[in-house]
Amino acid sequence: MKKSLSIKEIAALSGVSVATVSRVLNDNGRFSEETRQKVLKVIKENNYQVNSIAQTLRSQRSTTIGMIVPDIKNGFFANLINQIEATLFTRGYSTIICTTDKDSAKETAYLKALDAKLVDGLICISGQEYLDLSVMSRRIPLVCIDRNPNVKGEVGFVQSDNLTGGTVASQHLISEGCQQIAIVSKSDGPSSIQKRVEGAVNEINQHPNVNYQLLLSDRKDLSNYARGVDIAKELVKQTQPVDGVFATNDWLAWGIIQGLKDHGVHVPTQVKVVGYDNDDICEILQPSLTTISQNIPELAEEAANLLLKMIHIDNGNDGVIEKKRVPVELIVRDSA
Amino acid sequence: MKKSLSIKEIAALSGVSVATVSRVLNDNGRFSEETRQKVLKVIKENNYQVNSIAQTLRSQRSTTIGMIVPDIKNGFFANLINQIEATLFTRGYSTIICTTDKDSAKETAYLKALDAKLVDGLICISGQEYLDLSVMSRRIPLVCIDRNPNVKGEVGFVQSDNLTGGTVASQHLISEGCQQIAIVSKSDGPSSIQKRVEGAVNEINQHPNVNYQLLLSDRKDLSNYARGVDIAKELVKQTQPVDGVFATNDWLAWGIIQGLKDHGVHVPTQVKVVGYDNDDICEILQPSLTTISQNIPELAEEAANLLLKMIHIDNGNDGVIEKKRVPVELIVRDSA
Repeated sequence: MKKSLSIKEIAALSGVSVATVSRVLNDNGRFSEETRQKVLKVIKENNYQVNSIAQTLRSQRSTTIGMIVPDIKNGFFANLINQIEATLFTRGYSTIICTTDKDSAKETAYLKALDAKLVDGLICISGQEYLDLSVMSRRIPLVCIDRNPNVKGEVGFVQSDNLTGGTVASQHLISEGCQQIAIVSKSDGPSSIQKRVEGAVNEINQHPNVNYQLLLSDRKDLSNYARGVDIAKELVKQTQPVDGVFATNDWLAWGIIQGLKDHGVHVPTQVKVVGYDNDDICEILQPSLTTISQNIPELAEEAANLLLKMIHIDNGNDGVIEKKRVPVELIVRDSA
Repeated sequence: MKKSLSIKEIAALSGVSVATVSRVLNDNGRFSEETRQKVLKVIKENNYQVNSIAQTLRSQRSTTIGMIVPDIKNGFFANLINQIEATLFTRGYSTIICTTDKDSAKETAYLKALDAKLVDGLICISGQEYLDLSVMSRRIPLVCIDRNPNVKGEVGFVQSDNLTGGTVASQHLISEGCQQIAIVSKSDGPSSIQKRVEGAVNEINQHPNVNYQLLLSDRKDLSNYARGVDIAKELVKQTQPVDGVFATNDWLAWGIIQGLKDHGVHVPTQVKVVGYDNDDICEILQPSLTTISQNIPELAEEAANLLLKMIHIDNGNDGVIEKKRVPVELIVRDSA
């Protein structure tokens, strides 16, 4: 592999001083356009690569963003991460992704690692409710997505409008004639999911002729799909049968549909089902799944913009705590 | 946020010299157990954090691994990345993930970024056929998974036994009585996918009474699922109907099943279908999908072990080029 030139060697080859080469490399201070061209030519011809670690230490800027995510196997997270990465890349930033599996020891280890690599900013998606930033040696601009930051200082917060998502889902079921609605979620869900339930309950309470029941699965040992199948067993046993289900996750919704089918209950003729997330599976299932779509491109754009804004603001400014709420959309398919 | 103590302050608080603190921190040189305990106590009480960047520059070890992946939205990749990360974490390494979208400009940018962050090793999963490591300023231990490294020097190579995967898939179709088999793949697939096709063709050629046709979708504008639906349209037009399909990807297989269903062809009674990857969707589809499962835990373990072995070998050793081939497994479900 080619050995990098030193700045001294570049200076000699360009016929300028070391200080001038340094100014050109850092685009900092005075030099003529002619000098700049001369130095860049030598650099290009010799494939010189700036020693980024040393440069990072000097400038305290790494043009790298760290992203802490609980789980990349979840389709919604994967799509979101992908979009944020793509957006930041067009703005000149590399994104390094760390997955924590919702394990707080891992979260701490990765915060320290990202701190040590002098990332310019952090994006934290969902995960634990409490984020312990005290492990970091410096204050780093931070944007949280779909998790309540619960931290002091400059923090941006971007989230989907989960409350409206729940409202719209139950509105749709009611407009389709449902009067006995089951709201199905997980007892261990984060606040973003609790908001969906809250929205649905609030809406149903506006309609005196509509009843609801709340079913929260506590089966942490099961996948979302298996939890749905499990909940369906409960639903078919009830004396007053449900005619509508709002599940706070698409895989959960699909498990319910399959579980109902196993007991001879047809979706959508007997029970209508609405999911949440607009996962890639929604389109390929039969019946295809009516769901609430989170606007992933807009979530990504807002998070990236907010973080870059915080990075470029003078560090002394403590007042930047912005909150952005991104609208959601009902996608009507065959299940409701 | 708490300000870190300097080494000088730690020395003063511990009543030892700066050089001794440094030796304790780096676990390097001579000091008594009593001294070590004294220094560590001060560090612990004051929540001292070693300046990792400076330490990395000194030691040239960052206990960080970089992982270059084409796409985290693909379930197989997401599972594999997750397992590798978990394995490396238990061995004391943090993993930073960079997604390239199969874009060679991005791949180059991320290789440079990982180089600059002094990662101790690299894992590259699939992606472009050719990996240009000349952009890096130093030789970094590298393990490629499911992509032919095509690079000089110390490279580890771990892959699934794709050839056997294709063989086993067509063996299963033949044992189920199929005699007109369509092998469906993508014209733009990487070598790992071409191997699956090769294995299937080789096996069918052993059976004079079995015919095959190869259908390669070149519709880069379509998702795997949509390509499958598209191919199914071709299949139903044929005068000699197929009775078995091997698709080199589960989403492709599911598109074919749906496309056949749309034309009144039933799976598995009229056509049997085998997919590849054992994606999470296989279990939740109806019919559930018979597929070839790649052993993700073993792929992850082999890749992590190989990389750590290369990292700990003296850098002067040029001879380490290991190849590991990980067995696959047929998972029989309802579609074949």
